[in-house]
Amino acid sequence: MATRFWEAGEGRTFVGRLATGSDLVEEIERLCVARQINAAWVSVIGAVRHATYAYFDQTDHRYIELESDTHHEITGFVGNISLRDGNPFLHAHATFGDERGETVGGHLLHGIEVFAAEVQIREMTNAELIRQFDEETGLALW
Amino acid sequence: MATRFWEAGEGRTFVGRLATGSDLVEEIERLCVARQINAAWVSVIGAVRHATYAYFDQTDHRYIELESDTHHEITGFVGNISLRDGNPFLHAHATFGDERGETVGGHLLHGIEVFAAEVQIREMTNAELIRQFDEETGLALW
Amino acid sequence: MATRFWEAGEGRTFVGRLATGSDLVEEIERLCVARQINAAWVSVIGAVRHATYAYFDQTDHRYIELESDTHHEITGFVGNISLRDGNPFLHAHATFGDERGETVGGHLLHGIEVFAAEVQIREMTNAELIRQFDEETGLALW
Repeated sequence: MATRFWEAGEGRTFVGRLATGSDLVEEIERLCVARQINAAWVSVIGAVRHATYAYFDQTDHRYIELESDTHHEITGFVGNISLRDGNPFLHAHATFGDERGETVGGHLLHGIEVFAAEVQIREMTNAELIRQFDEETGLALW
Repeated sequence: MATRFWEAGEGRTFVGRLATGSDLVEEIERLCVARQINAAWVSVIGAVRHATYAYFDQTDHRYIELESDTHHEITGFVGNISLRDGNPFLHAHATFGDERGETVGGHLLHGIEVFAAEVQIREMTNAELIRQFDEETGLALW
Repeated sequence: MATRFWEAGEGRTFVGRLATGSDLVEEIERLCVARQINAAWVSVIGAVRHATYAYFDQTDHRYIELESDTHHEITGFVGNISLRDGNPFLHAHATFGDERGETVGGHLLHGIEVFAAEVQIREMTNAELIRQFDEETGLALW
């Protein structure tokens, strides 16, 4: 895909916390469905009981799934909301720290169990972020 | 705690830098006291001379304190300002890189000595983020 | 340098994606030149084919350059736009994850080859972030 930039409008700002035991990705997506948030930038600080994440193999065009059995602090997070198959979709990557401070990270999958998570969602208007399959990368991009 | 989300209003935006040798967490909190910033999302890019951070033991409900003797780049950062005991409180997690690029990270403690740090603080209005002890996690949550 | 904070105004918000094969830092700076973005906070989520980054030696005041041959997910990102020598300059740090989920990171250099990257740039007005050489740290700070 070629580089492409839009000027977006300022939308609503949501701030909140996720229930202990909830699924991090699903819980944020559920909120976005309920509030009709279709384009946004997302930030999360917190800790998880179980982490499931992935690395995209850029040659074979498939995700390698990873998981951590240990509890983790979220030490870095980048994410956004766009539309995929007509529904709000959270694309997020994070870094996770363990009890020695050592870190792992990747593309977040469903199955991450929240211990505590504080979330900010900043909506963009006039943004129309719609994911479609991109042949070159094998990813659903907007 | 249950999942809970608010729609917040757009507040002021502050941008600045922290003095070399200052305490990262204390310096940001001092600014928030001075400017009466009670709810905000915070981002920091920079490097530190000394890092003190922690991992929360989710079973024993206590922080395990960690520190690095090496100088570090901040390679990831998520944080926010809320009220704790009536005062602006910075809750932040970061990832730190060393001279080989290897990373560690966790929940930021007082005692992090700034080498150089560029900070953005985006205030939220109508947010009322007040930390209170949560029995289930052992954390002060809002 | 002493601690210094400004209250900035709200500017434009840009959202977009970078071309596969483009240089991450150069491509973002090119957009900022084209749109006259001189002060902004920047967030990126994506993956890279090749990563070049650095650790600043705080004693010798020089960058130690690092690179990864492996493909990487971006698992943490902090960055901003300021003016350096009169041009928009991206100062960014990132954490990168590999196929085992292990992470490295540092100060981003030119030469990072994008696989896929989603970018948000939030402009600040009345911010005047102009980099100048700082004797104490050996860095170009604003």
